[in-house]
Amino acid sequence: MTTIQGPKTGSGRFFEDFSVGQVLAHATPRTVTQGDVALYSAIFGPRFAVQSADAFAHAIGYPKSPVDDLLAFHIVFGKTVPDISINAIANLGYAACRFLSPVYPGDTLTATSQVIGLKENSSGESGVVYVRTVGHNQHRVDILDYVRWVMVRKRDSASPAPPPLVPDLLKALPVETLGDACPALNAAHYDLVLAGSPYCWGDYVVGEKIDHVDGVTVEEAEHQMATRLFQNNAKVHFNQFSEGQGRFGRRLVYGGHVISLARALSFNGLANAFHIAAINGGRHVAPLFAGDTVFAWSEILESDSMPGRDDVGALRLRTVATKNRPCADFPLRQGEAYDPSVILDLDYWVLAPR
Amino acid sequence: MTTIQGPKTGSGRFFEDFSVGQVLAHATPRTVTQGDVALYSAIFGPRFAVQSADAFAHAIGYPKSPVDDLLAFHIVFGKTVPDISINAIANLGYAACRFLSPVYPGDTLTATSQVIGLKENSSGESGVVYVRTVGHNQHRVDILDYVRWVMVRKRDSASPAPPPLVPDLLKALPVETLGDACPALNAAHYDLVLAGSPYCWGDYVVGEKIDHVDGVTVEEAEHQMATRLFQNNAKVHFNQFSEGQGRFGRRLVYGGHVISLARALSFNGLANAFHIAAINGGRHVAPLFAGDTVFAWSEILESDSMPGRDDVGALRLRTVATKNRPCADFPLRQGEAYDPSVILDLDYWVLAPR
Amino acid sequence: MTTIQGPKTGSGRFFEDFSVGQVLAHATPRTVTQGDVALYSAIFGPRFAVQSADAFAHAIGYPKSPVDDLLAFHIVFGKTVPDISINAIANLGYAACRFLSPVYPGDTLTATSQVIGLKENSSGESGVVYVRTVGHNQHRVDILDYVRWVMVRKRDSASPAPPPLVPDLLKALPVETLGDACPALNAAHYDLVLAGSPYCWGDYVVGEKIDHVDGVTVEEAEHQMATRLFQNNAKVHFNQFSEGQGRFGRRLVYGGHVISLARALSFNGLANAFHIAAINGGRHVAPLFAGDTVFAWSEILESDSMPGRDDVGALRLRTVATKNRPCADFPLRQGEAYDPSVILDLDYWVLAPR
Repeated sequence: MTTIQGPKTGSGRFFEDFSVGQVLAHATPRTVTQGDVALYSAIFGPRFAVQSADAFAHAIGYPKSPVDDLLAFHIVFGKTVPDISINAIANLGYAACRFLSPVYPGDTLTATSQVIGLKENSSGESGVVYVRTVGHNQHRVDILDYVRWVMVRKRDSASPAPPPLVPDLLKALPVETLGDACPALNAAHYDLVLAGSPYCWGDYVVGEKIDHVDGVTVEEAEHQMATRLFQNNAKVHFNQFSEGQGRFGRRLVYGGHVISLARALSFNGLANAFHIAAINGGRHVAPLFAGDTVFAWSEILESDSMPGRDDVGALRLRTVATKNRPCADFPLRQGEAYDPSVILDLDYWVLAPR
Repeated sequence: MTTIQGPKTGSGRFFEDFSVGQVLAHATPRTVTQGDVALYSAIFGPRFAVQSADAFAHAIGYPKSPVDDLLAFHIVFGKTVPDISINAIANLGYAACRFLSPVYPGDTLTATSQVIGLKENSSGESGVVYVRTVGHNQHRVDILDYVRWVMVRKRDSASPAPPPLVPDLLKALPVETLGDACPALNAAHYDLVLAGSPYCWGDYVVGEKIDHVDGVTVEEAEHQMATRLFQNNAKVHFNQFSEGQGRFGRRLVYGGHVISLARALSFNGLANAFHIAAINGGRHVAPLFAGDTVFAWSEILESDSMPGRDDVGALRLRTVATKNRPCADFPLRQGEAYDPSVILDLDYWVLAPR
Repeated sequence: MTTIQGPKTGSGRFFEDFSVGQVLAHATPRTVTQGDVALYSAIFGPRFAVQSADAFAHAIGYPKSPVDDLLAFHIVFGKTVPDISINAIANLGYAACRFLSPVYPGDTLTATSQVIGLKENSSGESGVVYVRTVGHNQHRVDILDYVRWVMVRKRDSASPAPPPLVPDLLKALPVETLGDACPALNAAHYDLVLAGSPYCWGDYVVGEKIDHVDGVTVEEAEHQMATRLFQNNAKVHFNQFSEGQGRFGRRLVYGGHVISLARALSFNGLANAFHIAAINGGRHVAPLFAGDTVFAWSEILESDSMPGRDDVGALRLRTVATKNRPCADFPLRQGEAYDPSVILDLDYWVLAPR
C-alpha cells in the first residue's frame, strides 16, 4: 500500500496569510460550566464574593454568580491561538479590552477576530499582526472584545511587504465606555463583611500602593491544566520534549496564568474590586516557569465615578507581578529598565461598590 | 507624586485582638457545585456510593447525592483562616465537630466563629485561642459546627494577659447528638453490591483493626489545588519562596488534606460507613510534604445503635494515617511517643446501614 | 484489649476465583457531571466541538453535549478494577468495544462483567481471564460494552487448571454494528468552521497517514487526578512508596490516560471525527511515566458508509502514540518489533459528517 500523507494538519498562518480587514471565525465553541469555575478556583484561588456565591450575587442584582472575568477572557483568547499566534515569535501586547456582558455557567462562547493592522519588520523575516477579537455568547451578544498584536514569522522572506498599517490604540479606555458587564446593583445589599473588606471605591486614593503580601508557587500540572481548560494549544506550554531543546530549556507558563494569579492575590487589599471592567494594556515583561513563586502589588492610577451610576465606581489600577521577590517595597524599575523580578505590568479598570 | 501606602492589607489578628464572646462573621460565601465535587474526587479518590451517585442516594432517601462531609468541613474551615489562624504558630486541635445537615451542590455556605476561650502562654509571647465555628447554608440552617484551638502570636509581649478561660471539651460526642445530617433511610434499598462491601454496622466489633492497605503519594499541585478550592489562604501551603527559607524548607500540606486522604483510603474496609456524623478530635502528629505516600488503618472504638433509628448504626473510629510506611501492623506508638511514621490520629463517628 | 483483625479488606480475586459464566456486578455507581467534563478537558485537552459546546451539539440533533466517549469508557473501566484486575500481572488487551448510547452529565453509570474465558498459563502460576463488561445508565440502558483480558496470579500454584476456553474475538467490529450512540444528525447544521476543519468523512482516503504534530508532557498530578476521577484504584498509579521499590522504580501512568491524550492530540488532523463508535483493539506496547512527552499519528485503515445513514460515515483508524519522539515520519516498527518509542497501537472506528 502506498503511503499517502494528507494535508489535514495545517502549519498555521504565517505573516503573508494575513490581510487587513480579514475576518477569522474561530473554532471551538465552548460551554462554560460550574466545572470550569471550580477548576479556575482550584488553580488560581480567587476569593471575590460575587463570583464565589450565587446567594451573594443574587442579593445585589445578578441572577447568579457570573464567572470570573478572566476565565471568560482566557477561553476567548484560547480560541484565537490556532488561527493567529500558532506561528508567533512573541505576543507583543493587548489593549482596549472591554468586558461587555456577564458570562454565566451554561453560556456557550465563540470568538471572531478581524485583522486591523499589519507591519512587516525591517528584517523582512517577520511582521506584526494586529487583530481585534470579539467573544460572543449563544445569544450572539458580545461578551468582551480586545485588540492584541503578535509578531509572526514570514513563510518566505522574499514575499512582498503589505502596506504598513498600525492602528491607533487608546492608552486607557475612557470611563464612559465601562460597565456594560455589570448590571445595576442594589448596593445596600452588598455585604462588606461577607465580601471580606470594609474598603469601598471611595476609600482608595490615586497614588496609593497596595502590597498584596501573599506568594504562590506555580506547578507544571497547574498551568498545563489551566491552559488546556481554556483550549489554548500554544505548543510552548505543554511540550517539554521540544521546549527542553529550546530557548529556556523548559515549558513556558501562559501569560494569562500570571494575570489570573495576580488578580487572585489582589483580593488581599482589593476585596471589593469585584469586577474587571476593562484591560487597558498589559506587558509580559519576563517569562514565568513552574517552580517560581508569584507576588503582586497594585497602584491606584485613577479613581472615577461612573456616568449615570451611583452603585459602583471605577478604579484604574496598575498591578505588577514579580517572581521570587516579595512586593513590600513595590518593585518596578531599575533605572530605565524593569526590575529583574518583574514579570507582568498590567493596566486595567475595576469596579467597586461606592 | 507622593507614594501613599494604604492600610488595605491587614496583618491579621494577634492574640490581643481576640476576646471571649467575640463573634467573627467570615468572608467569603461559597456556592458548592458539582465542579467542586469532581475536583474533590480527582484529588482524594473517595468511592462511597452515597456521595458518588445521585441514583443510589435517591433510592435510599436523599433527594440526590450530598457532597462529601469533609468537603463541607474544609470549605467552612477555609473561611476561618484569614480571621483566626493567619498568625497562628500552630493548629493545636479540634473537637466536638458535628455534621448537622447535608450539603448539596447549589448550596451556599457561610461561617461564623465565636471566641470561647483564651489562655496566654507562660512565655508571654503567644496564647491559645479557642473558637466555636458554625457553618450555615443559604437557608440559615446550620450544616456543621466544631471547636478548634490555635496558638497565636502576640503583637506585643508586654500586653496584659486576659483572664484565662479554657472551655470544657467532651472527649467524644455522645451518640444521642449524632445523625442530624443523615435523613431517615430506606435501608432496604441500600444496595450492598453497588456499595462495594457486604459489611454493615453490625459486622464491626469493638477492638477490630482494619488495614486500609493502599497508599497514595501526594503531589504539590494536588494539595495546592485542593486547599485553594477550599479558599484556605494559609501561607505555608502555597509559597515555596518563603517556606524554602523556613522550618521545613518546603511547603506544608494542609492537615485537612491528610484527613481526606485517610477517609478515602478507609473505603477499603469501611465501604458502607458512608457518612461522618462527628469528629471527636484529631491530632496532626507530624507534617506531610509532597512526595510522601500516605497509608491508613482504623480501629473500631465503639459501636452504638442510634436512639430512635433502625436504619443506621454508629461506629466510633480511630483512624491513623502514616507516611511512607504501610499499616499492616497498625503502627501507632513507640514507647510513650507516636511512631515516627504517624501523621494523623483521628477520632470520629461514622454511620453505616444496619 | 485483644486485637482483632477483621477480614474487611479483601485481597481481591485470584485466578482460581473466576469461573466461566460468572457475573460480577461492580461498585461504585457514579453520576457523571459537568465537573467531570471540566476535569477531563483540563487534563487531556480535547477540542471536539460536539463535546465542547451544548449549542453546537443541540444544533445538530443532540439534546446537549454528550460527554467524551473515553470519559464514559474510563469510568466504566475503573469500576471493574477492584473485581477483576487488582491482582493482575498485566492487562493483555481489549477488543470489541462498542459505544451504545450517548452519556450526558447527570447520568449515573454502573457496570457488570461476565467471565467469558479462562486459560491457565503453562507455568501454573497464573492464568488469563477474559471478561465482557457492560456499562449501563440509570435507565438500565447499555451505554458501552467491551471485552478485555488480563493475566491474573493464582493464589496457589497447586490448584487445578480449569478447562481452557478462549473466546473468539473479531479483529474489527463490522460497520453494521456501529453508530448506536450517535443520533441521526442534522448534518446541514454541522458548522465546519466552528468545528475547526473543512475535512469531512469523504476527504480521508484509506492509507492516508496523519501526523498530529503536537506533543504533551504528562505530570504525576495529572494522571493521578484523572485516574482517581475514574475511581480506578489500581495501586501502580498512585503509590510511589511501593512502586519506587518495584519493576520501574516509579508510578505507572494508566493506559487509558495514553488513549485519551492520543485522542485529544488527534484533533489536529481529525477535528470532525467527533465520535468514537468502537474500539476494535488496543495494545499498550510500552509503559508511560510522568515527565514523558506523548506524540501521536494516525492511519486511515478503512472508510465505510453507514448502512441506512447519510449524515455520517465511518473511518477505521490506527492511532499510534509515542513517547519523547515526534511522529512526522510515522514511527511504528523496527524490524519485527515495535519502534522503541511506541507506547500505544490503537485500532478504532470514528464517525465524521459526510
